[in-house]
Amino acid sequence: MDEGQDALHVRVGCELAYDVASPTPAVFLVRPEDGGRHRVVRESWSTEPAAIFHDYTDLFGNACRRLTLPPGPVRVSYDAIVRTSSALDAVDWNVEQHLVQDLPDEVLVYTLPSRYCLSDVLAKRALELFGSAPRGRACVQAICDWVHDHIAFEMGTSTPLTTAVDVFDSGIGVCRDYAHLAITFCRALNIPARYVFGYLPDIDVPPPYPTMDFCAWFEAYLGGMWWTFDPRNNDQRKGRIRIASGRDALDVAMVTTYGASTLNSMTVWADEITDGGSPAREHH
Amino acid sequence: MDEGQDALHVRVGCELAYDVASPTPAVFLVRPEDGGRHRVVRESWSTEPAAIFHDYTDLFGNACRRLTLPPGPVRVSYDAIVRTSSALDAVDWNVEQHLVQDLPDEVLVYTLPSRYCLSDVLAKRALELFGSAPRGRACVQAICDWVHDHIAFEMGTSTPLTTAVDVFDSGIGVCRDYAHLAITFCRALNIPARYVFGYLPDIDVPPPYPTMDFCAWFEAYLGGMWWTFDPRNNDQRKGRIRIASGRDALDVAMVTTYGASTLNSMTVWADEITDGGSPAREHH
Amino acid sequence: MDEGQDALHVRVGCELAYDVASPTPAVFLVRPEDGGRHRVVRESWSTEPAAIFHDYTDLFGNACRRLTLPPGPVRVSYDAIVRTSSALDAVDWNVEQHLVQDLPDEVLVYTLPSRYCLSDVLAKRALELFGSAPRGRACVQAICDWVHDHIAFEMGTSTPLTTAVDVFDSGIGVCRDYAHLAITFCRALNIPARYVFGYLPDIDVPPPYPTMDFCAWFEAYLGGMWWTFDPRNNDQRKGRIRIASGRDALDVAMVTTYGASTLNSMTVWADEITDGGSPAREHH
Amino acid sequence: MDEGQDALHVRVGCELAYDVASPTPAVFLVRPEDGGRHRVVRESWSTEPAAIFHDYTDLFGNACRRLTLPPGPVRVSYDAIVRTSSALDAVDWNVEQHLVQDLPDEVLVYTLPSRYCLSDVLAKRALELFGSAPRGRACVQAICDWVHDHIAFEMGTSTPLTTAVDVFDSGIGVCRDYAHLAITFCRALNIPARYVFGYLPDIDVPPPYPTMDFCAWFEAYLGGMWWTFDPRNNDQRKGRIRIASGRDALDVAMVTTYGASTLNSMTVWADEITDGGSPAREHH
Repeated sequence: MDEGQDALHVRVGCELAYDVASPTPAVFLVRPEDGGRHRVVRESWSTEPAAIFHDYTDLFGNACRRLTLPPGPVRVSYDAIVRTSSALDAVDWNVEQHLVQDLPDEVLVYTLPSRYCLSDVLAKRALELFGSAPRGRACVQAICDWVHDHIAFEMGTSTPLTTAVDVFDSGIGVCRDYAHLAITFCRALNIPARYVFGYLPDIDVPPPYPTMDFCAWFEAYLGGMWWTFDPRNNDQRKGRIRIASGRDALDVAMVTTYGASTLNSMTVWADEITDGGSPAREHH
Repeated sequence: MDEGQDALHVRVGCELAYDVASPTPAVFLVRPEDGGRHRVVRESWSTEPAAIFHDYTDLFGNACRRLTLPPGPVRVSYDAIVRTSSALDAVDWNVEQHLVQDLPDEVLVYTLPSRYCLSDVLAKRALELFGSAPRGRACVQAICDWVHDHIAFEMGTSTPLTTAVDVFDSGIGVCRDYAHLAITFCRALNIPARYVFGYLPDIDVPPPYPTMDFCAWFEAYLGGMWWTFDPRNNDQRKGRIRIASGRDALDVAMVTTYGASTLNSMTVWADEITDGGSPAREHH
Repeated sequence: MDEGQDALHVRVGCELAYDVASPTPAVFLVRPEDGGRHRVVRESWSTEPAAIFHDYTDLFGNACRRLTLPPGPVRVSYDAIVRTSSALDAVDWNVEQHLVQDLPDEVLVYTLPSRYCLSDVLAKRALELFGSAPRGRACVQAICDWVHDHIAFEMGTSTPLTTAVDVFDSGIGVCRDYAHLAITFCRALNIPARYVFGYLPDIDVPPPYPTMDFCAWFEAYLGGMWWTFDPRNNDQRKGRIRIASGRDALDVAMVTTYGASTLNSMTVWADEITDGGSPAREHH
Repeated sequence: MDEGQDALHVRVGCELAYDVASPTPAVFLVRPEDGGRHRVVRESWSTEPAAIFHDYTDLFGNACRRLTLPPGPVRVSYDAIVRTSSALDAVDWNVEQHLVQDLPDEVLVYTLPSRYCLSDVLAKRALELFGSAPRGRACVQAICDWVHDHIAFEMGTSTPLTTAVDVFDSGIGVCRDYAHLAITFCRALNIPARYVFGYLPDIDVPPPYPTMDFCAWFEAYLGGMWWTFDPRNNDQRKGRIRIASGRDALDVAMVTTYGASTLNSMTVWADEITDGGSPAREHH
């Protein structure tokens, strides 16, 4: 990580308020992952009433926080200041696409279909749309362009059951759906792709774009590395802070609850801070 | 109908063999429709063992033959000689597309989704693919071209549950599926379209095309008339003999049976004849 | 119709407010059908601004009103007083189920799958659940009981794309979905069934039931007649006023619009009146 | 493992013949897993022509063999003799179901939906069918009984796209589908369940059962251990030899190939041997 004068400080976090009918086990993925381009400078986690938690690492390497929500009104909040590079998402047009036989073993799982990314169903369509595109980064970019241009962003259009095929058919979705469809096309072409979600501050973004705070994108494996792609915004961004990744949104839900609780409100923030501590704006 | 020197004689028919476990009501659509471009010159219908039938006209104007298959082995056959025009499918590039408000009342039903033609699901996709195409015949032709080019013909790929959306996703199908997808796009653009099936002899067709005999295509309503389109062959043909039409394949199954029978074999023929009586080739 | 002292007077109607971007053809099904158990005593239809309409009868015998909504804000309203029998929905436990071979020709169409009623998909399930039930009315009632007991009523859970299979899987729906699933099971068992919608006043209904006004139910063909079944309420009701029927909700949408209009509000009323003219309650 | 007089020897293996158009990366899961109840006594692996392979362990702990099939006709075969316990599948009716909060971290992944096991879609149905069953093993057994009784075994009915929901709707499937549906119900009830496939010799099985050789079943996590359940056979069996497990059939395909190869034939064997070496019967 670049710790020099180019460092960016971002305040990230979220607050969730539940009404819990009976003790409800839950798993949270809200902490920025360790390593990579960023470092957590300061963080606080709280539950009201207090609840014991423990952390573990899931199959995909994500740091999960597990606790049981007690009955009654419960408030869970996470707040952190993260130092990260001020550089835009990295781009290298010369990275090459691997032959499947050259992929590392642990990457193969990201070439297969998953709950929401039905690359088996759309295999022929993917080949038809992108089979004659140049290989490598250009191919993934062609996929992102297509998805960006052919899916209309509409809040409230997708449900927890919406797959990439539904989105391909209907032509509407949210950032999760853009990522799912692009991942699906990549896998159908044997390019490993994984779903990522994290905080995305609104830095140097022209007005028409809505504030996103919390966002899903994806990574494709090219030239021996995972590269960031964001078909929703379809642009390089600053300050993207990765929380977790997996095969699709199902592997990396921000919160998974088991049982009788109602989520009453959720607030997420991701704001650049300039004095190393105060938030750029308040969230309620 | 042109009865002059340009008349074409086609022998059409089919033979179906069943094993019937208990009396099985059935409805057959195998007779060329009356009127239109062709006239049935001679026909025979037989069931072994003999079974009483009666004819009726369904909601869509098709002549249905209804009977009850008796238990045991049953053979149903229809054979006819039809005189028809030797002209190719009619084409007029100047026919105009109607505004919905100008469509006749009885045509409106062909603008709606149906069992297999889910124009509601693919509405946005249709607009995106063809919304900027010229209107009228050119638009329907653009749809046929797209379907012809983007669906791979593969026998045995579709089941009685396969919808136009499945075909759009998978990119494979048979003539029924080509018709369903093209109809779906037409309706999504408010062009009335109906499913047609009939006999299609193999006249002046270059070798690569397989013999089809029995085929599905569709009609679009333009300039006050229904026009033939065939996205599977995507070419004008001679001697197309219409049996029935409806909203989709469900409305006009060749045979609908209720109950415990097994279809053991089905043979269909549609061959040009040159001496007014003998078949051009034998079918077994 | 019983015009004696048992007659019931019901005020029915609806008001719809649209914002129309460009001239929008529309078809309305809001008038109680002629004949049957009820008679329209007085009615008024209005559009603001005024719009010319014409009426026609669709494939299923329903009286459709067709007009083109002009650009700008448009208000369409229908209000009527209907005299109907005060008797509950008719019930006869002795009506017999027809063999398919004994069904009238025009009834056969209601044995087939349709857009929302995928009796082909659920064929085996239907047989398994109800195949050993007594035949006839008892079988249809067993279907209604199952649907009533296994589907949870939840507003806002179904979309225009929700089929009976979706409802069977999820176990939730609204009155339209209850009707679709029951119809699906009936057809899978070769009992003709059709979708009905109409006004349903809230007469002698115990408190827990919500006011419905506008409702979907279905009819099954038994003993040579169509009989009313309502798996949502699963009880006999008074004053049910039929508007239209068809294979499923797609054939008989209350309003079908073609084009660029937004429905801003819809109010429906169906209230018993006691002095032959004033509404029992006001709707806004 | 019991190595005493009760040991059972089973010869297992498979032979696959491909026509390969261009070098085709492939991953094979055909070796009995190490550990557990059995031990591989002798084994041979061969490819004709010879191909280099390497082994790795996937996310779910399975031993995968990875190689690239060379162009031309290719034959891959695996043959082994395995010593295993002669005991039936273990059963303990007293094992308790864990509260979710008491499940080990690494087991949580098996409570979530997956590609074929859409426990989110069937959540309400599962609760309705089994919510009032006793908890623990009795609940899982009730699920197996239901699946065994409500799904008809029919070869050739499921495709690589068939999900547990499709099977729930259609009521037909093969052993893979039985396992998927039972897993789906378990997860919907918060009982961790994973898909297993392996060799299943035909020992002491009454005649009506078909020979299976290669089979899918599942495991449920109860009382701190994974227990075998087989809703297809729904009976305890001898000599079950586990190859791999995962969330569903997608995670543990016997062979995953990337590219242009055609599988011409596949033979699988799993036969008890009595002299420690010769197969009980020949496979071709």
